[in-house]
Amino acid sequence: MTDYRIETDSLGEIRVPKDRLWGAQTQRSIENFRIGTERMPSEIVHALGLIKHAAAVTNLRLGLLDRKLADAIGTAADRVASGELDAEFPLVVWQTGSGTQSNMNANEVIANAANLALGGELGAKSPVHPNDHVNMGQSSNDTIPTAIHIAAVRMISDKLLPTLETMHAALAAKARDWKDIVKIGRTHAQDATPLTLGQEVSGYARQLEAGIARIRWSLPGLLELAQGGTAVGTGLNTHADFGSFMAEEIARVTGLPFVTAPNKFEALAAQDALVFAHGSLASLAVGLNKIASDIRLLGSGPRSGLGELSLPANEPGSSIMPGKVNPTQVEALTQICAQVFGNNAAIMFAGSQGQFELNVYRPVVAYNLLQSVRLLSDGCDSFTRNLLEGLEPRRDNIARGVENSLMLVTALAPTIGYDKAARIAKDAHEGGTSLREAATASGWVSGEDYDRIVRPEDMLGPQ
Amino acid sequence: MTDYRIETDSLGEIRVPKDRLWGAQTQRSIENFRIGTERMPSEIVHALGLIKHAAAVTNLRLGLLDRKLADAIGTAADRVASGELDAEFPLVVWQTGSGTQSNMNANEVIANAANLALGGELGAKSPVHPNDHVNMGQSSNDTIPTAIHIAAVRMISDKLLPTLETMHAALAAKARDWKDIVKIGRTHAQDATPLTLGQEVSGYARQLEAGIARIRWSLPGLLELAQGGTAVGTGLNTHADFGSFMAEEIARVTGLPFVTAPNKFEALAAQDALVFAHGSLASLAVGLNKIASDIRLLGSGPRSGLGELSLPANEPGSSIMPGKVNPTQVEALTQICAQVFGNNAAIMFAGSQGQFELNVYRPVVAYNLLQSVRLLSDGCDSFTRNLLEGLEPRRDNIARGVENSLMLVTALAPTIGYDKAARIAKDAHEGGTSLREAATASGWVSGEDYDRIVRPEDMLGPQ
Amino acid sequence: MTDYRIETDSLGEIRVPKDRLWGAQTQRSIENFRIGTERMPSEIVHALGLIKHAAAVTNLRLGLLDRKLADAIGTAADRVASGELDAEFPLVVWQTGSGTQSNMNANEVIANAANLALGGELGAKSPVHPNDHVNMGQSSNDTIPTAIHIAAVRMISDKLLPTLETMHAALAAKARDWKDIVKIGRTHAQDATPLTLGQEVSGYARQLEAGIARIRWSLPGLLELAQGGTAVGTGLNTHADFGSFMAEEIARVTGLPFVTAPNKFEALAAQDALVFAHGSLASLAVGLNKIASDIRLLGSGPRSGLGELSLPANEPGSSIMPGKVNPTQVEALTQICAQVFGNNAAIMFAGSQGQFELNVYRPVVAYNLLQSVRLLSDGCDSFTRNLLEGLEPRRDNIARGVENSLMLVTALAPTIGYDKAARIAKDAHEGGTSLREAATASGWVSGEDYDRIVRPEDMLGPQ
Amino acid sequence: MTDYRIETDSLGEIRVPKDRLWGAQTQRSIENFRIGTERMPSEIVHALGLIKHAAAVTNLRLGLLDRKLADAIGTAADRVASGELDAEFPLVVWQTGSGTQSNMNANEVIANAANLALGGELGAKSPVHPNDHVNMGQSSNDTIPTAIHIAAVRMISDKLLPTLETMHAALAAKARDWKDIVKIGRTHAQDATPLTLGQEVSGYARQLEAGIARIRWSLPGLLELAQGGTAVGTGLNTHADFGSFMAEEIARVTGLPFVTAPNKFEALAAQDALVFAHGSLASLAVGLNKIASDIRLLGSGPRSGLGELSLPANEPGSSIMPGKVNPTQVEALTQICAQVFGNNAAIMFAGSQGQFELNVYRPVVAYNLLQSVRLLSDGCDSFTRNLLEGLEPRRDNIARGVENSLMLVTALAPTIGYDKAARIAKDAHEGGTSLREAATASGWVSGEDYDRIVRPEDMLGPQ
Repeated sequence: MTDYRIETDSLGEIRVPKDRLWGAQTQRSIENFRIGTERMPSEIVHALGLIKHAAAVTNLRLGLLDRKLADAIGTAADRVASGELDAEFPLVVWQTGSGTQSNMNANEVIANAANLALGGELGAKSPVHPNDHVNMGQSSNDTIPTAIHIAAVRMISDKLLPTLETMHAALAAKARDWKDIVKIGRTHAQDATPLTLGQEVSGYARQLEAGIARIRWSLPGLLELAQGGTAVGTGLNTHADFGSFMAEEIARVTGLPFVTAPNKFEALAAQDALVFAHGSLASLAVGLNKIASDIRLLGSGPRSGLGELSLPANEPGSSIMPGKVNPTQVEALTQICAQVFGNNAAIMFAGSQGQFELNVYRPVVAYNLLQSVRLLSDGCDSFTRNLLEGLEPRRDNIARGVENSLMLVTALAPTIGYDKAARIAKDAHEGGTSLREAATASGWVSGEDYDRIVRPEDMLGPQ
Repeated sequence: MTDYRIETDSLGEIRVPKDRLWGAQTQRSIENFRIGTERMPSEIVHALGLIKHAAAVTNLRLGLLDRKLADAIGTAADRVASGELDAEFPLVVWQTGSGTQSNMNANEVIANAANLALGGELGAKSPVHPNDHVNMGQSSNDTIPTAIHIAAVRMISDKLLPTLETMHAALAAKARDWKDIVKIGRTHAQDATPLTLGQEVSGYARQLEAGIARIRWSLPGLLELAQGGTAVGTGLNTHADFGSFMAEEIARVTGLPFVTAPNKFEALAAQDALVFAHGSLASLAVGLNKIASDIRLLGSGPRSGLGELSLPANEPGSSIMPGKVNPTQVEALTQICAQVFGNNAAIMFAGSQGQFELNVYRPVVAYNLLQSVRLLSDGCDSFTRNLLEGLEPRRDNIARGVENSLMLVTALAPTIGYDKAARIAKDAHEGGTSLREAATASGWVSGEDYDRIVRPEDMLGPQ
Repeated sequence: MTDYRIETDSLGEIRVPKDRLWGAQTQRSIENFRIGTERMPSEIVHALGLIKHAAAVTNLRLGLLDRKLADAIGTAADRVASGELDAEFPLVVWQTGSGTQSNMNANEVIANAANLALGGELGAKSPVHPNDHVNMGQSSNDTIPTAIHIAAVRMISDKLLPTLETMHAALAAKARDWKDIVKIGRTHAQDATPLTLGQEVSGYARQLEAGIARIRWSLPGLLELAQGGTAVGTGLNTHADFGSFMAEEIARVTGLPFVTAPNKFEALAAQDALVFAHGSLASLAVGLNKIASDIRLLGSGPRSGLGELSLPANEPGSSIMPGKVNPTQVEALTQICAQVFGNNAAIMFAGSQGQFELNVYRPVVAYNLLQSVRLLSDGCDSFTRNLLEGLEPRRDNIARGVENSLMLVTALAPTIGYDKAARIAKDAHEGGTSLREAATASGWVSGEDYDRIVRPEDMLGPQ
Repeated sequence: MTDYRIETDSLGEIRVPKDRLWGAQTQRSIENFRIGTERMPSEIVHALGLIKHAAAVTNLRLGLLDRKLADAIGTAADRVASGELDAEFPLVVWQTGSGTQSNMNANEVIANAANLALGGELGAKSPVHPNDHVNMGQSSNDTIPTAIHIAAVRMISDKLLPTLETMHAALAAKARDWKDIVKIGRTHAQDATPLTLGQEVSGYARQLEAGIARIRWSLPGLLELAQGGTAVGTGLNTHADFGSFMAEEIARVTGLPFVTAPNKFEALAAQDALVFAHGSLASLAVGLNKIASDIRLLGSGPRSGLGELSLPANEPGSSIMPGKVNPTQVEALTQICAQVFGNNAAIMFAGSQGQFELNVYRPVVAYNLLQSVRLLSDGCDSFTRNLLEGLEPRRDNIARGVENSLMLVTALAPTIGYDKAARIAKDAHEGGTSLREAATASGWVSGEDYDRIVRPEDMLGPQ
């Protein structure tokens, strides 16, 4: 009994662990939502700390809050923003769809921390009240989407984009280094006309470059903040300048160009911008899956695969087959892609289900979006460091592929026509001969002409 | 027997219906792919006609094709582009993943039509040869993605975006017309603080506006054309200027700012731009689903629903319940949204499965993407004409909702604090009384103060 | 003007093309839903014909309809069921979510056809009335789900399952034929211990066998018919025996064990059984994608791929590369898998959106489900005929892979331990030597022991 | 430096934290996969403990392992199975796709724990060697899928199914309790003919009942264990009876009817059974989403919603609107449904990507599948306790809906025909009158007949 203190809210009394900074509403959520292991992402909690500090500053600026309370709130909010108080945020994702309980968790923790600092007691709600002061001018309905946008933009800007830039640079460097290694092309997983290994990798580099641009196109929507809409978008119970002042302050603190959303009704009721942003991540994952899968196959072997690339041997690959080395970074990254594809479906569904003035699928969207950003960031970083940078061509195997290729016949088509060229390739394939043998045997090409026309090193670009 | 002519290709002889313009390779595809009922979308066929004309012009310009053949190809290609020869394109979506068979279908039909016009015979491949002349400088591997991009941009530009602009205008007009109709807000599907019907609809309008912008952001990637990459991206067997000249010519003919893709290896091997573009459609569909679902619920009734909107009665609604009128346009549009969500999953999967120099899921991507564009265009047009324009507020019901609301108590919170306000709302709810009665009974507010503070018309924005 | 007749319904007059059998409600749907090109699947139309005949029989049996009308309805309904009147069913998928308009389309066409046969006039609604007689005892709300279940079970039973059995038999035959062809195994796309080609294919055969069983598990739910629930599940305006008599009659006619649904409220309001059924199709598609993708890679080459299988050359593969042959059946089938994955997402969404007494996403679910069944049936048939049956091993390449393999070292592990075996494999890989050379050089194994222990043909099963 | 010990594997030396039970391969994974926060699910770790104990028992039984080592392994494995050593399993999901690193984590931890117990030292690999003894007769390639199946079946059997039974019972009880409360039906979200609240809820109960049956149908596939296939399915390096003895032992220990998989090639290379199992969860989630969404709407209000149900007030609902109570359990559960839909997409993708003898997406499938089971279990438990059990009808509102309904007109249709009945309903709607007034005014029905025919309490079933 003595390990608890009694708190009250509009539903009555409830016991809260004695030394915890959270209060009645957080405690009710703990008890009513014993679901899963996924906590509200810490990036959201930190963003709430940032918002609460900004709100205190803004309410002070607007003359609505006195300096003593504002300072106390600001100091306590900083502790939330920095992660110092993460242990005071026990709530799971699977709670009210507005995230109200996590917003109240922040309000309660900050109020209690501030009151302690001001000499007060836990649970006193005085001098700092969680709703009347910490949440002043705010509603969960504008605060939670604001926190999600802040967390998403920060993770994308600080973590994902720099990682992708590094990965792009690594690919571009390989494209340059390997620009003269002529190899067989493959379409339909069948031998095709040649290209260089550098050209092939330049396609991957371009995928990254375009993927980065697409993610940047999703930022304008994420930079719009709902704050100022309060309960239903009208901004009831807040000051007319609150939303724009908040966006200014958040932009100042983060160094990121946040603005106040032009229509708060949309900002509360919809999550379209987040859906679109995740769509850009999914299109990146589509590209990453292609790149990683190619590297897996080009590195297949060592003896009975395509064997064009040698991947770094980072770990023993098998618990039963000694000496086996596997493309484990490929596997980690492609599993991440699978997860991102799944997360995209979850977010699309959640985004589509808004009703009236509020979309009540905020926590599940935040959870999936931030997981995707985190996994793509970490996964690309790991892939770049532990695979791309150590990737090496297996030049002997590559050269052998070009020599044996039947698709060099394509170079003959402009001279002897498609139909005759097709016959030559077919003859070589069926006879198991070299292409040159079949070509000269056909009578349509002399050996001399063949040697002049069929030169892989001249087949790497237009005439 | 006499209904057929005999054609040959590199695999031997095959019988083709006597009067058909298609040839051996089309016929093989008909016989080898008896799958489903979904034909290659006609928009792709038309784009192939456009490309083949542009290629003839370009090859003429480059001095690679003589004028007589170029003109004959151009004239025949125009008949494909205009849809006149749609019946000559019998192939289904479920064919080779490069779309080679549909490219050859176009090559064969155009060669035959050109040869007929030049006095030749069906199947002669002379003077115009399907591969050597109609397909000159091209491969299916660059031509099919080019056709898909052209079809997509044309449908989005000509059909989808104008429809969305009209829908946006209809919503914006309603937002203006209804700007003074005060109604109850709803969050969590529960009564909340008031807003105007115009404010609510302004959120929908903003969703459309942002959705349009997002679709526009997907256009730069779609405007990049693969043409010029030929078989594997190197541009083998084409002229160095072929790609850029083709983009110029296609831009000239369509009036749309197409450019040649900066990296042809990516343009052939990946479909990331199409995945991203469909992601923008999916985020639009997410928004449309929200808007349509809200209208369904706001129009629910006529007696036992929310009853705030009256929807046009376009058809009898029930085969058994006489006099029933249903939100059928909502149902058509939300079913379209379901389809778009499904299409998004199909496209993501297909996009992720490229291998080496080619992604062999082109037809399924084209099919799903163009279906989404078509359905969203038609669906939004139908929704706007047959529902939005006839939507009317039910003012009596709306007014009653505001009068009864308990959430007007929120206006008291800044004065008496959150906790006391909560108690008043709870008393009114449990007692079944009006909010004013509970407020004055509490002793915390006088009737006079209540009437001064709790005014729905003053709760529509910040103080 | 004279090309039309005037019909009326509860909304007033409307012009209907003079000779068409459909009536006012069909015409309104045509005009109000100008959306897309996807018609209500013909299998649904045929099922509606079957239902309307069964309803006439049942109403006659219950003494609610006189024989003359019942016979006339039955005869007309048979023409719908047989497909003879398909052209009279112009409605698209994107209509009211209950499918009411397609149900009324059937009611109107049958009433008109029956009235004509009885000497009456088009549009007279007499002596046979579309609602009062053709639709007697029914509502769209129970009839449309009944039609969907009938169509799905028939297509699955008549088309999909037999095709899958044939495909399974083809795989099982290959597994037997190839049971002694020892080949290298591959895990992580890297060389692994050997198995036989027959063993590998036996895994595919088992996937089919289990996939067939899973689809069968979805049939019990589909065999439950909603008919008898009428408007909301209560069965208002029908006879207490109508539902069970209908199920009996439908079972009799189709030869399939249909039963009346035990709870009609669920049968109208939910589509869970259809979602589950499509989930079984999706798990089949997952398996097909694996099988087809393996065959693509095992057949890669002809010179620079894995080259273990030779695929039938059904068509020329490339418009630019002469002589190329591609795994086009693989590509058609894997594109179908992509479509099925997309359809699964569409159906899950649609299934989740039921409200109150009705799920109003019936047409979109029917469209996607039946498309999946049709494509999987046709695709597997095509794949079996055009690829599987002509598949041949490339024995030389296969033998070479086994000889070169480093993973034969696994056989040494029980004798010399995992760590020493791993060292030998590593030495061989780095030195480019044979495994035997590295093993004997290590001093841990004699040549004699090596030859006794490392025998691929002894590594195909447990000791 | 002294905080570490040096371990070696085939790639060389590596530093491992001094007191940790894990070894070199676990440590390499920690360092090479710094990705995300999602650890390999503890249920998988526990299943690995169970497997390793069973393997020791089986190897002892087969005479391959001496009793001392077997006992030491068994004791150590039990500590893993019980969760006592969870902290020794630091690896994340995003690792090698075979889960080899987690299998080696178990092998290393158990070997070290056993060696310590036998008086040995950490890292000595002696007397118990992680590969040669703990992993004896096993490969990751059969062990990890075995662990996933065990974990899935246990969670479904022990947790999910009992929870669903309880939820079903709660719904069935409400269906009985409310069997006489007549209410308005709603189709298309529009007023329809009446039913009882009990009938409505009986549909939900049936959804649960059928959902439970569907999940049970997924168990046979999950009860098949891959163990015995070792590296590629052949069972190389294990005893011919190992697989079946293991299944026996695992069945004995768990009390669940596990069997050895009939085809080990399929068991290693495919994950179709897991895809199908998750499909059954997804179809359950589809049903739960419908049920929860209905309850949200039926409980909407309290003043301006449908107001037919009163939900328990578990927490204050709003940080800004005092006194607000929200359907938070609905929101948690529907967010879980969104997550399950996403997980389904991830699992389908992963399942489709197997190659050759192994599917290398095991960890991501395990992670998503077990998350779905856990969330559905916890979510349904929370929903049942915190919402369903406290759900109450609002009888006054319900009665008012029936009185006002226009759709009672349906009862007149069999007497006066559909067309006249439709006119009456339309007149009442447009005139704002009661249905009785409009009916008698029409002249088609006397007041007496109306009162005899239009009786909601007689409209709850067939005549």
